[in-house]
Amino acid sequence: MSKVRAFPTVSLDGFMAGPNQSEENPLGEGGEELHEWMLRLKVWREAHGYEGGASGESSHVAEEMTANVGAGVMGRKMFGPIGGGDWGDGAWRGWWGDEPPFHTPVFVLTHHPREPLHMEGGTTFHFVTDGLESALGHAREVAAGKDIAVHGGASTIRQVLAAGHLDELALNIVPILLGSGERPLDDLGPNPPRLELERTIAAPNVTHLKYRVG
Amino acid sequence: MSKVRAFPTVSLDGFMAGPNQSEENPLGEGGEELHEWMLRLKVWREAHGYEGGASGESSHVAEEMTANVGAGVMGRKMFGPIGGGDWGDGAWRGWWGDEPPFHTPVFVLTHHPREPLHMEGGTTFHFVTDGLESALGHAREVAAGKDIAVHGGASTIRQVLAAGHLDELALNIVPILLGSGERPLDDLGPNPPRLELERTIAAPNVTHLKYRVG
Repeated sequence: MSKVRAFPTVSLDGFMAGPNQSEENPLGEGGEELHEWMLRLKVWREAHGYEGGASGESSHVAEEMTANVGAGVMGRKMFGPIGGGDWGDGAWRGWWGDEPPFHTPVFVLTHHPREPLHMEGGTTFHFVTDGLESALGHAREVAAGKDIAVHGGASTIRQVLAAGHLDELALNIVPILLGSGERPLDDLGPNPPRLELERTIAAPNVTHLKYRVG
Repeated sequence: MSKVRAFPTVSLDGFMAGPNQSEENPLGEGGEELHEWMLRLKVWREAHGYEGGASGESSHVAEEMTANVGAGVMGRKMFGPIGGGDWGDGAWRGWWGDEPPFHTPVFVLTHHPREPLHMEGGTTFHFVTDGLESALGHAREVAAGKDIAVHGGASTIRQVLAAGHLDELALNIVPILLGSGERPLDDLGPNPPRLELERTIAAPNVTHLKYRVG
């Protein structure tokens, strides 16, 4: 059964990035600390062509994130910053490098049409201009029974959750306070979805919680 | 060594109470669900004169909250709602009943002077009109080496944290989304304190995290 999943790493105060995000500092001030738990894992390093790394409670969580994912959805700002709100000269390929870590079709929510962008390693960015429902519909189609990953950013996860489309929310809570930024669990309206705690994994410097969304 | 501790129970989106708090509904809409994990515990029920109740991973956490506490600090709204911002006829005794569950002196932050209020069971509410530092100073004095509990509400915990006075933050995260309300971990300014994850306790329907605040 195909699930719509999000698995953001957040600070203890709920932010996916720190304040003052910019093209030079896409995770904002202090935001790079959010992902240290993953970058030091052997499973992450191997997938990105590096040697060494740690194993532990978090390894399984990191593997689970990408396992059985058939398609992704992301917001335009997570694809990359665009000056002026359009695609500029059309050469901009986002900030995920030549071989993005998604390895599936990824549907990018945007107001500006663009031809699909085929990257190395199996990632194709499709640009969807007719909204979230449409992006999820396309993702479901190409996922062909596999899961749909809602990669982010915060506002995209929030939209998917508020619209009742999320089946599973995995949170990786890092013991830092970022103080301000954008929260995925914010402004969820008067009838936020119900959650059921499915699993808690304690690691030395990150807490992995998994919830089924009702 | 005396510690300043806070141990709020929060929703997964970080709120200590739901929206639309009122005198009739002090925890706001949906907020009463926050405390179910504690109310069902044998240790809580015994302390409040009830029989029965559950034991489990959370019991130790509940016991730890009140252990070695010599004094408390709380915001005025947590003491009780006051119409018009003053003490009315002076008979208002807060919403904690005749025998509040604190059993120590508790320093209430307010703009309106009032004589101390002696309650049954060892709780005395002292009303402090000259600010947080003063309240913490008084609390430290009467605590005489025991810990100081920052009971809440959200804005009082936030103030203590932002001012760098908190030594330990224990969060009990309940798997509900409240959608709006007031967060203790919000508006912490450009230099929020550092945290160190000390302990994770997984219970079926609540996650207990304890952080040392640097």
